[in-house]
Amino acid sequence: MEATLEQLRTVGYRGLSIEETAARSRVDRSMIARRWSTKALLAAEALAGQVEFRPIPATGNLRTDVRRVVQRAIQVLARSPFGRVLVEMVSELDADPEARAQILQMFGPARAAHLDVLQAAAGNGRLPYDIDLMLLLDIISGTVLYRRLLGREPTPHIVDQLTDFIVDLRLPRANPAQEPTT
Amino acid sequence: MEATLEQLRTVGYRGLSIEETAARSRVDRSMIARRWSTKALLAAEALAGQVEFRPIPATGNLRTDVRRVVQRAIQVLARSPFGRVLVEMVSELDADPEARAQILQMFGPARAAHLDVLQAAAGNGRLPYDIDLMLLLDIISGTVLYRRLLGREPTPHIVDQLTDFIVDLRLPRANPAQEPTT
Repeated sequence: MEATLEQLRTVGYRGLSIEETAARSRVDRSMIARRWSTKALLAAEALAGQVEFRPIPATGNLRTDVRRVVQRAIQVLARSPFGRVLVEMVSELDADPEARAQILQMFGPARAAHLDVLQAAAGNGRLPYDIDLMLLLDIISGTVLYRRLLGREPTPHIVDQLTDFIVDLRLPRANPAQEPTT
Repeated sequence: MEATLEQLRTVGYRGLSIEETAARSRVDRSMIARRWSTKALLAAEALAGQVEFRPIPATGNLRTDVRRVVQRAIQVLARSPFGRVLVEMVSELDADPEARAQILQMFGPARAAHLDVLQAAAGNGRLPYDIDLMLLLDIISGTVLYRRLLGREPTPHIVDQLTDFIVDLRLPRANPAQEPTT
């Protein structure tokens, strides 16, 4: 796993090779190939330990909680080594359902952390009781990942815009909301 | 281009080869390589003619217009051959700024069609005058593409949910909004 992570750091998913992993870790190539049938699965397992999935402490303040979920999504998808590799391997997921399932499982704890916070807000009536939390998370993650794929790094402004859209039901504006001048 | 499209249809982006394109179109390989320096650029140009970019006729009814933008995003990103190939090549975009620029340019007319409709709504006061239309489009496209990448096909329900979120500022619910029973 260390050898795989080292390669991902230096040459990325595209440059990752099972041969090189075998050479670096002094393990027989066929042993690695037996355990991980594809490069995607090898990378997925190596990265699983790297994903941030500390629970997000719920504060009870909806704006703070939503903001933290958005920030965490940006951190995981757009700033972490995991996100960088995810972008590189995302196109193989369609052709490799096993790797996709494993990636989804890796996302599981991070997703659960997000869900916990939002679920608590729904339970306390700060969000509608019948809210589609999965879609809400997909809206947040999808927007962040899309900007990342198009090469536009998510800015702090987008954190405000997405938070305001969800919390205040305020459509995103070109200029940040005016802060009260008190 | 025909030879490239034929390959994209049958073996996908992953199976596309410049050699095969050369053989099928009876053109010298080096000529193709000179014109398209990467596979991504070759695929991008072949697909450019396939993207749906008919203007979306604005009806003046905000709900209808937004719904059509969401439907078109689903059609282009999740249902078209272009979308299928886009998902396959999306991971190369990070490493290939030239192909990314070309893809963005291909998206240009489709994006312009979406923007026209929404801009008209903003101009007529049906959307806030200072709305961030780019982000609104990224929210729509990002959510659709994200679901596609995770292997969950966008359902008709999501069209309602996204439309209601934007038009009625109604957070997405797990169950469709009740239709008036009149």
